[in-house]
Amino acid sequence: EEEVQCGEKSGEALEALLSDLAKVSNSRERASRLFQWLIHPIPSMSFFGDTWEKKPVLIKRQNPDYYKGLFSTAEFDRILRQDDVQYGVNLDVTSYTNGKRDTHNPPGRALPFTVWEFYESGCSLRMLNPQAFSSTVWSVLSILQEQFGSMAGANVYLTPPGTQGFAPHYDDIEAFVVQLEGKKHWRVYNPRSEDEVLPVVSSPNFSQSEIGKPILEVVLEAGDLLYFPRGFIHQGDCLPDAHSLHITVSSYQRNSWGNLLAKVVPAALEMAMEEDVDFRRGLPVDYLTYMGVQNSDEEDPRRAQFLSRIEELMKKLSTFAPVDAAVDQKARDYLHDCLPPMLTAEERASSVQGAPSRWEDGEAVDVGVTIRGHTRVRLIRSGIARLCSDGEAVWLYYTADNSRVYHKEEPKSIEIKAEQTDGMEFLIHAYPKFVTVGSLPCESAEDKVSLAELLFEKGLIHTAEPLQRS
Amino acid sequence: EEEVQCGEKSGEALEALLSDLAKVSNSRERASRLFQWLIHPIPSMSFFGDTWEKKPVLIKRQNPDYYKGLFSTAEFDRILRQDDVQYGVNLDVTSYTNGKRDTHNPPGRALPFTVWEFYESGCSLRMLNPQAFSSTVWSVLSILQEQFGSMAGANVYLTPPGTQGFAPHYDDIEAFVVQLEGKKHWRVYNPRSEDEVLPVVSSPNFSQSEIGKPILEVVLEAGDLLYFPRGFIHQGDCLPDAHSLHITVSSYQRNSWGNLLAKVVPAALEMAMEEDVDFRRGLPVDYLTYMGVQNSDEEDPRRAQFLSRIEELMKKLSTFAPVDAAVDQKARDYLHDCLPPMLTAEERASSVQGAPSRWEDGEAVDVGVTIRGHTRVRLIRSGIARLCSDGEAVWLYYTADNSRVYHKEEPKSIEIKAEQTDGMEFLIHAYPKFVTVGSLPCESAEDKVSLAELLFEKGLIHTAEPLQRS
Amino acid sequence: EEEVQCGEKSGEALEALLSDLAKVSNSRERASRLFQWLIHPIPSMSFFGDTWEKKPVLIKRQNPDYYKGLFSTAEFDRILRQDDVQYGVNLDVTSYTNGKRDTHNPPGRALPFTVWEFYESGCSLRMLNPQAFSSTVWSVLSILQEQFGSMAGANVYLTPPGTQGFAPHYDDIEAFVVQLEGKKHWRVYNPRSEDEVLPVVSSPNFSQSEIGKPILEVVLEAGDLLYFPRGFIHQGDCLPDAHSLHITVSSYQRNSWGNLLAKVVPAALEMAMEEDVDFRRGLPVDYLTYMGVQNSDEEDPRRAQFLSRIEELMKKLSTFAPVDAAVDQKARDYLHDCLPPMLTAEERASSVQGAPSRWEDGEAVDVGVTIRGHTRVRLIRSGIARLCSDGEAVWLYYTADNSRVYHKEEPKSIEIKAEQTDGMEFLIHAYPKFVTVGSLPCESAEDKVSLAELLFEKGLIHTAEPLQRS
Amino acid sequence: EEEVQCGEKSGEALEALLSDLAKVSNSRERASRLFQWLIHPIPSMSFFGDTWEKKPVLIKRQNPDYYKGLFSTAEFDRILRQDDVQYGVNLDVTSYTNGKRDTHNPPGRALPFTVWEFYESGCSLRMLNPQAFSSTVWSVLSILQEQFGSMAGANVYLTPPGTQGFAPHYDDIEAFVVQLEGKKHWRVYNPRSEDEVLPVVSSPNFSQSEIGKPILEVVLEAGDLLYFPRGFIHQGDCLPDAHSLHITVSSYQRNSWGNLLAKVVPAALEMAMEEDVDFRRGLPVDYLTYMGVQNSDEEDPRRAQFLSRIEELMKKLSTFAPVDAAVDQKARDYLHDCLPPMLTAEERASSVQGAPSRWEDGEAVDVGVTIRGHTRVRLIRSGIARLCSDGEAVWLYYTADNSRVYHKEEPKSIEIKAEQTDGMEFLIHAYPKFVTVGSLPCESAEDKVSLAELLFEKGLIHTAEPLQRS
Repeated sequence: EEEVQCGEKSGEALEALLSDLAKVSNSRERASRLFQWLIHPIPSMSFFGDTWEKKPVLIKRQNPDYYKGLFSTAEFDRILRQDDVQYGVNLDVTSYTNGKRDTHNPPGRALPFTVWEFYESGCSLRMLNPQAFSSTVWSVLSILQEQFGSMAGANVYLTPPGTQGFAPHYDDIEAFVVQLEGKKHWRVYNPRSEDEVLPVVSSPNFSQSEIGKPILEVVLEAGDLLYFPRGFIHQGDCLPDAHSLHITVSSYQRNSWGNLLAKVVPAALEMAMEEDVDFRRGLPVDYLTYMGVQNSDEEDPRRAQFLSRIEELMKKLSTFAPVDAAVDQKARDYLHDCLPPMLTAEERASSVQGAPSRWEDGEAVDVGVTIRGHTRVRLIRSGIARLCSDGEAVWLYYTADNSRVYHKEEPKSIEIKAEQTDGMEFLIHAYPKFVTVGSLPCESAEDKVSLAELLFEKGLIHTAEPLQRS
Repeated sequence: EEEVQCGEKSGEALEALLSDLAKVSNSRERASRLFQWLIHPIPSMSFFGDTWEKKPVLIKRQNPDYYKGLFSTAEFDRILRQDDVQYGVNLDVTSYTNGKRDTHNPPGRALPFTVWEFYESGCSLRMLNPQAFSSTVWSVLSILQEQFGSMAGANVYLTPPGTQGFAPHYDDIEAFVVQLEGKKHWRVYNPRSEDEVLPVVSSPNFSQSEIGKPILEVVLEAGDLLYFPRGFIHQGDCLPDAHSLHITVSSYQRNSWGNLLAKVVPAALEMAMEEDVDFRRGLPVDYLTYMGVQNSDEEDPRRAQFLSRIEELMKKLSTFAPVDAAVDQKARDYLHDCLPPMLTAEERASSVQGAPSRWEDGEAVDVGVTIRGHTRVRLIRSGIARLCSDGEAVWLYYTADNSRVYHKEEPKSIEIKAEQTDGMEFLIHAYPKFVTVGSLPCESAEDKVSLAELLFEKGLIHTAEPLQRS
Repeated sequence: EEEVQCGEKSGEALEALLSDLAKVSNSRERASRLFQWLIHPIPSMSFFGDTWEKKPVLIKRQNPDYYKGLFSTAEFDRILRQDDVQYGVNLDVTSYTNGKRDTHNPPGRALPFTVWEFYESGCSLRMLNPQAFSSTVWSVLSILQEQFGSMAGANVYLTPPGTQGFAPHYDDIEAFVVQLEGKKHWRVYNPRSEDEVLPVVSSPNFSQSEIGKPILEVVLEAGDLLYFPRGFIHQGDCLPDAHSLHITVSSYQRNSWGNLLAKVVPAALEMAMEEDVDFRRGLPVDYLTYMGVQNSDEEDPRRAQFLSRIEELMKKLSTFAPVDAAVDQKARDYLHDCLPPMLTAEERASSVQGAPSRWEDGEAVDVGVTIRGHTRVRLIRSGIARLCSDGEAVWLYYTADNSRVYHKEEPKSIEIKAEQTDGMEFLIHAYPKFVTVGSLPCESAEDKVSLAELLFEKGLIHTAEPLQRS
Repeated sequence: EEEVQCGEKSGEALEALLSDLAKVSNSRERASRLFQWLIHPIPSMSFFGDTWEKKPVLIKRQNPDYYKGLFSTAEFDRILRQDDVQYGVNLDVTSYTNGKRDTHNPPGRALPFTVWEFYESGCSLRMLNPQAFSSTVWSVLSILQEQFGSMAGANVYLTPPGTQGFAPHYDDIEAFVVQLEGKKHWRVYNPRSEDEVLPVVSSPNFSQSEIGKPILEVVLEAGDLLYFPRGFIHQGDCLPDAHSLHITVSSYQRNSWGNLLAKVVPAALEMAMEEDVDFRRGLPVDYLTYMGVQNSDEEDPRRAQFLSRIEELMKKLSTFAPVDAAVDQKARDYLHDCLPPMLTAEERASSVQGAPSRWEDGEAVDVGVTIRGHTRVRLIRSGIARLCSDGEAVWLYYTADNSRVYHKEEPKSIEIKAEQTDGMEFLIHAYPKFVTVGSLPCESAEDKVSLAELLFEKGLIHTAEPLQRS
């Protein structure tokens, strides 16, 4: 656990940053700069080296406006008024009083009339997917996900003065607590045991007696950041004199080596059985007489032999591991989890979304914009799409048609024809450079153009210059 | 079939009308005035007496602006640009060329870039639920549904000059073709036989040789209306010199006496078996030897006796018909089909949606607006809610939380406690009058207020005057 | 309620009867004679006229051997030993002590070791489908079902001296209690109200205080019969000095006019909507404003008009009733419920089951028995099969492949080709007469023979004389 | 491939053997003697060492009666007559003519009349589960399964002279072709490639051109045995002068090391993630940019590092392998696959199935046989039951209530209470010795007796001496 004190006004404020980022051409760089800003002044490299997944860190900024524009209670109120926020789906009403944690969601839509009544009575409000309602949150998370290579999510918490909304607990994600308004008193505790370090699932609610002494106790003020890895127990409560609004940005849920191995290992076994007769040989005819729990205390030399054979085969298994194919399975899940990109004005203008085709004065005009051999194109974002093979065909999975609501859309993909696969791969690796359609390594000019047209129509590429009418 | 010629500028244009309607306090009157405007200058009473479900009628207005503001191709273009319109879900691309009807929907989102390319190549565009994208269409349909007592839907059709998008066919709904832009050549044909009069399901596509001669042939121009009942075959095509945009407003799908009987009859039989031992008596032990298709040509006096017994019981069945309960079943389906109301500024201001509770200057203000005994309230719309009994409890079904997308939300209802049922019924029948909460026929003052609070929070009632803070 | 006293040795004992019945050629006559024997000395006609579905009747025979051979505790013991009887599936262990009814089924197979232990401890044993284990019960029920035109079922009850196994209750079937061994004290009570006369479902267990005074109290001895209709409450207990074994033969479950109407009425409505435009006309546009439970107390002349329109249409409905088609639906259910026939030696010898084809001395012999034009055939039983149309094709439903376990097999049917339908119908109506294959009204000789071969292979017809080798 | 020539009358015939086996007390010894007899004169040990899963072997016995009594065409005919054999379920009718393989199953029951007609027309008959119809086959297979530790199955094949019923193919099981009647010409071929050695699934039908030259060609005569491992292609056809009847005994379907690993490996991963934080650590944030199929050709040092980390973790995985628990999962599947034991007269007499409790002279007699502390008991068969833990409770899985029809019954188990687990384990390991109930290591005498009673009632143990009445 570590504390960093910043001088006043150190670092760029969000609004300025976002406008700067729009000028950064490479989406990976954009992601890394946004993340760097989030944890400023800690350098990213040292953060990932020393802190990430290891220990909490606190950044005190003395700059209440640092995160300004990301989210506010005023926007919360506006969303309640304008959008269809549903209790229990998008908003939770909670309380933690005298050691008792309660949820108070009524059915139906959450309108300001009832929401603010709950707040006034001392309940905390948790908005579950602010990215669906706030463009800024959407924009920030959709950029950050490219930094993490794992879905970035967020919850917003609004807590009345002098109250606490949640019991102490730990989560299954890396958490960045961004204080937006007011202040909050936080206590962070070590994982209780080795088994709860970087845990796979979140904890239940703990009582105060189960969690020991905090390793970090602090009052977070607007502009401050508190990071802690999954497994670190935490609780926050409001001081009597101020409400608190914070947003917790999260990532790395089910994104461990073990989660990848769960894809690798069954595939490895399947391949081993196909390719290596040792895996297909019959078990000893008498193995049931000395193996199994009922025989586990028996002294039988055949047991050792059997166990050593299993060990030998399991070790051999690693030689069959189709790691890249398993990574692709994981990547497909990730692309499905992703937020769609929020395009900048420039990106929009040079992509299908900004194509000039329109209805004007009783007719369709500027129709049929043409992609030609000399048109220069590239992926609209580095992480927008990924080429995966299922053994028979090659598919391009992409995030462009995802919804801002998690998994509301099915995973999206298009089949890439054999004669266009190399072209597609070339385009992916060319990023962030623009390349001419004519330079795509497809045999025929027609294949080059039709691939580019397909990708353009799906919103996966944009052009270096505005497109011409045909 | 009938044709009505209007003088130029006869009737109020839509925009003015809608602003007038907002001042009409009674939603049923609002509905009837909007419908009257739609079919102006035919009086509603004579329309429902002579035309509805009987024959087509054509109204030529000489006023291209009559329906202006309802929908336009410019709005179509805006929707494609701003909303998530999906091919096959919200938009169909069709053609009818040389007697062949085709659909050309690609997968994915319909952006202007591809949509206008289809249009330029001669395809028709059908937008399937414009009410989800256009507030005006939503407003108009949500008012009209109260006139019909049956869901009002709409499709928009945009057709390039010199083309036809659909084969001749008939539908299963009453259709009001509202010409918005350009012009279209229409032909309407009689139902082909008695069996196809007011049909239960739509027809397949017909060939030109199957449909006989048109009984009505006309060029519809902006501002004109063409109505025809379900079962009347129709086809429309564009003249070479003009595109066409029309919206077809529809209603009365599965809303016949037979559709109601499908709810009445099984309930009647269930009741008859409970209450009348004649329905519980055993069949004759030998009935299988003389009844059934294999015996239908037999001359057996027992057959006549058996058939007459069946007839007698079926006639008796009508004495058990729980008609009101069956109507409630149908009403529940209707309330689920309904669009939610689109509130006027005044309605909003006096209902939960416009309640002053809000976040301001770091705190929740104007929270806890109070409904008291002297507060005057009424349903926000006549058709917003309906009291139904399922035999055990009493439920209030309502439309306020429906989605603009058909059946996207489950049917919504709240249980009304026994001690509040009379109060609820009183409130329903009081409409359009405002009544004081204190006048509700509930025993305790608490029951009166808690009923009114519940209805207010759900957005089902509004108040005569703005609410005060508590 | 009625009591009939028989002289000793009146009526034929079962064994003799069954051997006589095997000589009766017409299965319908067989059924009626077996039923006559069951209720001897009451004439069938007067039974069905005065007693059936009306009141209990008791027959005291003074002849303990009258039903001998139908079932015995010795056979019960043999079945436990030889067959796979499962607790809870085929056998229930019950008790009724101090007003409390309990079931004691352990999981798994019911072997004599545990079954007799339960019996000794005072539990009653109910065997649920003795027809699956006892050929005689199977034979008797499969004949009786043809008399009832409705499935005939049975349970066997063995009760230790001085105990009662079941609480007072009524059933949903006509019950014939056949006392086989020992004696039992029975009390029968009137239905408690008009609503419980010929009830649709069985009652829960009653307490003694709920059922009033018995209308019949008697000690049933071996050879006696007690009949009571569904709805009559009953209870039986053993005297201290004797155990009791009885079998209850049941029929007419869900076989009322109402059960048939449940098939007729929806089909009638469907037909009415197709054929009569009155059923397809729209409901009044304002009907929801005066109909429905919330308006049921309103004085509105439109209500009376609406109700009278419904009544009119419901009465008209009877003119569309496709009664024969509905009877066929019911007949199909019945054929699925039926036991398969238990063939007599003669039936077996002249049907596919007794065909001489066999393996002998290393080769298949007497293969290819031929049906020719002069072969005389008929259905093997009147009720073995039934011709039903589903509107498109004609199907022959049949019971021959049913299982002795209720609904273990799917309903069985074969499609009858258009050119063989008349032949099939002719064959059905010819029963009990044998007819030559050549006389079947099919156009070609080939169709006649192929129909006969198909029916012969399925075991649905038998021949007048043994078949010859081809 | 190997051929063994036996002198005439070498080895004991089946009937004598089975009667001898009934005297063998230890079921494992019974199994090994029966298997030894099957492959006589090859010693079991050398068979499993040199031949099993390695190569075909042929045993020519010069003794047509060696397998007599196992099955015959006469029994086939009897089964068709007496049992409910269904085409497509229990019997397949096949042909292989001019390189074309056909199946001719009609729907419905297979009666001799139609079956022998198919046979006469040159079709082969395959009975799919003779163990359900033949007690001898049941008995033999239920003993052999204990030898294999894997389900033993069988099919019977009857082929007319001069015909072939099946195309060349290989199976996924070890096959013992036992010639019962007549003779058959067999050709056996090597697996076509390393990948088809000991294959996981059966092959499709091959054409003659795909399979190369036979490594074994022979005419099998009654009494002969042909064994070949899975993967060896084979075809058999009848000589013009003789029909053929053989039974193929099979085992070791899905019983390989790989099949066990499919249970071990996911469990190992689950355990590793619980116990070792290395498996829970996050993946590198940038891994998607260099791993996956689209990056598989990239030269990036991070790839090697990533792959080596995966390899390291996979190797470490073997240290977490819960092998005994996985074997128990496999054992549970095996116990579910097993045939129930077919008891000998002695086994029956000393078990629940032969308990003297019965109905005699109007009452239950010899009820309540008592198990006491000095009663000597043991498992009725070594393989009848197995103790498995699911982590929370301990369950005894058993085969006694399985059906002779594969998987017709659900897996059967009973929970063993904590205080009886040691007793249960003691009893399992004591086999084949009888032990007194009093010697079971349970704390209370009551626990000992209640455990023994439970096992006795389920048919899992028998007693050394006949039981006494209580």
